[in-house]
Amino acid sequence: MAEPITFLSDYGTTDEFVGVCHGVIAGISPESRVFDITHGLPRHDVRGGALMLRRTLDYFPARIHLAIVDPEVGAERRAVALRTVDEDRIFVGPDNGLLSIAARRYGGVAEAFDVSTSPFRLQPTSSTFHGRDIFAPVTARLAAGASLDEAGTPLDPDELVDLEMPMARAEGNEIVAHALGFDAYGNVSLDLEHEELASFGLRLGVPVRVNGTEGIYTTTFADAPEGGLLIYEDPYRSLALAVNRGSAAERLGLDRDDEVRIQPA
Amino acid sequence: MAEPITFLSDYGTTDEFVGVCHGVIAGISPESRVFDITHGLPRHDVRGGALMLRRTLDYFPARIHLAIVDPEVGAERRAVALRTVDEDRIFVGPDNGLLSIAARRYGGVAEAFDVSTSPFRLQPTSSTFHGRDIFAPVTARLAAGASLDEAGTPLDPDELVDLEMPMARAEGNEIVAHALGFDAYGNVSLDLEHEELASFGLRLGVPVRVNGTEGIYTTTFADAPEGGLLIYEDPYRSLALAVNRGSAAERLGLDRDDEVRIQPA
Amino acid sequence: MAEPITFLSDYGTTDEFVGVCHGVIAGISPESRVFDITHGLPRHDVRGGALMLRRTLDYFPARIHLAIVDPEVGAERRAVALRTVDEDRIFVGPDNGLLSIAARRYGGVAEAFDVSTSPFRLQPTSSTFHGRDIFAPVTARLAAGASLDEAGTPLDPDELVDLEMPMARAEGNEIVAHALGFDAYGNVSLDLEHEELASFGLRLGVPVRVNGTEGIYTTTFADAPEGGLLIYEDPYRSLALAVNRGSAAERLGLDRDDEVRIQPA
Repeated sequence: MAEPITFLSDYGTTDEFVGVCHGVIAGISPESRVFDITHGLPRHDVRGGALMLRRTLDYFPARIHLAIVDPEVGAERRAVALRTVDEDRIFVGPDNGLLSIAARRYGGVAEAFDVSTSPFRLQPTSSTFHGRDIFAPVTARLAAGASLDEAGTPLDPDELVDLEMPMARAEGNEIVAHALGFDAYGNVSLDLEHEELASFGLRLGVPVRVNGTEGIYTTTFADAPEGGLLIYEDPYRSLALAVNRGSAAERLGLDRDDEVRIQPA
Repeated sequence: MAEPITFLSDYGTTDEFVGVCHGVIAGISPESRVFDITHGLPRHDVRGGALMLRRTLDYFPARIHLAIVDPEVGAERRAVALRTVDEDRIFVGPDNGLLSIAARRYGGVAEAFDVSTSPFRLQPTSSTFHGRDIFAPVTARLAAGASLDEAGTPLDPDELVDLEMPMARAEGNEIVAHALGFDAYGNVSLDLEHEELASFGLRLGVPVRVNGTEGIYTTTFADAPEGGLLIYEDPYRSLALAVNRGSAAERLGLDRDDEVRIQPA
Repeated sequence: MAEPITFLSDYGTTDEFVGVCHGVIAGISPESRVFDITHGLPRHDVRGGALMLRRTLDYFPARIHLAIVDPEVGAERRAVALRTVDEDRIFVGPDNGLLSIAARRYGGVAEAFDVSTSPFRLQPTSSTFHGRDIFAPVTARLAAGASLDEAGTPLDPDELVDLEMPMARAEGNEIVAHALGFDAYGNVSLDLEHEELASFGLRLGVPVRVNGTEGIYTTTFADAPEGGLLIYEDPYRSLALAVNRGSAAERLGLDRDDEVRIQPA
């Protein structure tokens, strides 16, 4: 019984990388359906990929997850396959933190394997296209029914690379959050949830000041005037900044991890 | 029997929106094939999406059509599902005119339902990602065999939002058409068909003047010199402007709905 | 028994061209799986497409190959379908050289057919969208079991258009190679393989000078410092230039077919 697979990467759609990985998977596990989450992650954005995995996987009817954002391909970093404590999800990808946040979301890592020299890999194995030669074939073999311990050598889950994340904090009458990520519309995700804002006395409908710019805390874009700034709960229940019919990232000049200071207006 | 679905949006492929909608559909109607028409519509281009639906649907072996271009998501606009008089096609999307032109193409709307609070929607329903929470699950349930009247509450088809479209007209010795849309090559679709030009005395092969620039009315790009302007019948039998190996939109400086004045040269 | 198909083009994903071709194929051969290699080739880059076909097809479980990069669509160029000597692979596309390099890779052309007026084409056949009206339906009919000689009229394989390719050469103490192509990361493929460099006395690990810039001949990006230039064997066993976490194309100011002069540093 071939299982479906989700596939996330920063490969882009200009080159053949994504297509070739699909081909390799289909050659090994022809009945596996492959869901592309996106391949448009900013190049080398490991943390952006990690956050995207965490928030999207619940929406796919699949428990096998291939993810590739791999700036260190060919260097020392391990290739890994791991199983989570909850839901027995399987993740395959580089050991650079990309899988860590999603694994935590599913109860942490129950077991992990180093698949850098997996018997399932294609040979000769290139130095620069591990998606094709290691990650895709290992994922496909697991989807086709192979067991994790056939895929590589056991690894202490505590040795897996973790990701550091900024943490929102209170400071005087401000909440200091951070710009975690950006979507194509210029909306900015924050490391903040509704409950945290609420505990700070900010309720829906009230005006706020965000890095000095006035805005409103609301539920829909249309509650702000065209060009107006808003804080809203994004579809994954985190708070985010937007500008109605514009780009909040541009408007506030935000780069990743920049501080976002929020106070009642 | 799960039916195939076409899917058109302005979500782009950089973010996870398209992938997540595919995941939601597959979770509900695993056997439904989903054809992506494109997700590269210019952001918020409702009319461009409406025109694209009209011209492409005949080429897909599907009668269930999901379309999302939704600048007013989360605001007052309705989410709707409707059935056309001809061919029993089903459309699901926002009620902002996006579905109107294609519906007209198939004989108009036989019945319409407001699915804003459909029992098929995902809960909690976000304010900003109705593709995932309303449109995709409603479409998938219909593709899996649910009936339209289970999907929402009946709506008078006359209450559906319509789109205004410019109309080509004759003026003295000119035809005044309009730039309806642009493709990635800079070709410009016009609100004009071959018969209309012909009735104005313009025949294939004759030189024309388009907003003051000389060109030729012809059938293939190669009939114009490199860099030369031409009017041709596009693959959907409307007339369009092109520049051989160049961009007509740039050459003539056209924005959407701009007038395009055509006369014999 | 419907066969799978690979599909490569320069159509991009902004417009509906790729989606419509998928629709046409599915209408004719519903069971055929279609693998998108990529549709992000630079517009009109026939040689880039030809090289991509050659290097990727081995990775797909398919022997029927649709390829469309077609600057002369609607003009005199033929539409063709051909079968290769080795592996009985079938290629469908414009006769402009796009299929020639891959065909050579599989032993050359055993038989060729002109499908410009194929009985399998859609009618009326547009002048500008042969993907939809000729190439996709011909490919789909072949995938669904039709034989090549039903698809068109026989053609002498020697009449097929070939592509000229630059050829690396030795010159004094230099190897003069050429920039064959570029990927989205700015890596530059060369018309050179490892054996050729080795025969010139260049071994892995040695410093080299490339058009005057110092670099290293190595196997992985991480062997060069950040921003450093390297020559490496790409995943298809050709040599290529890269800059670790940067763009070699930009760094060396290379356009296609530009000379790349390599010597020991």
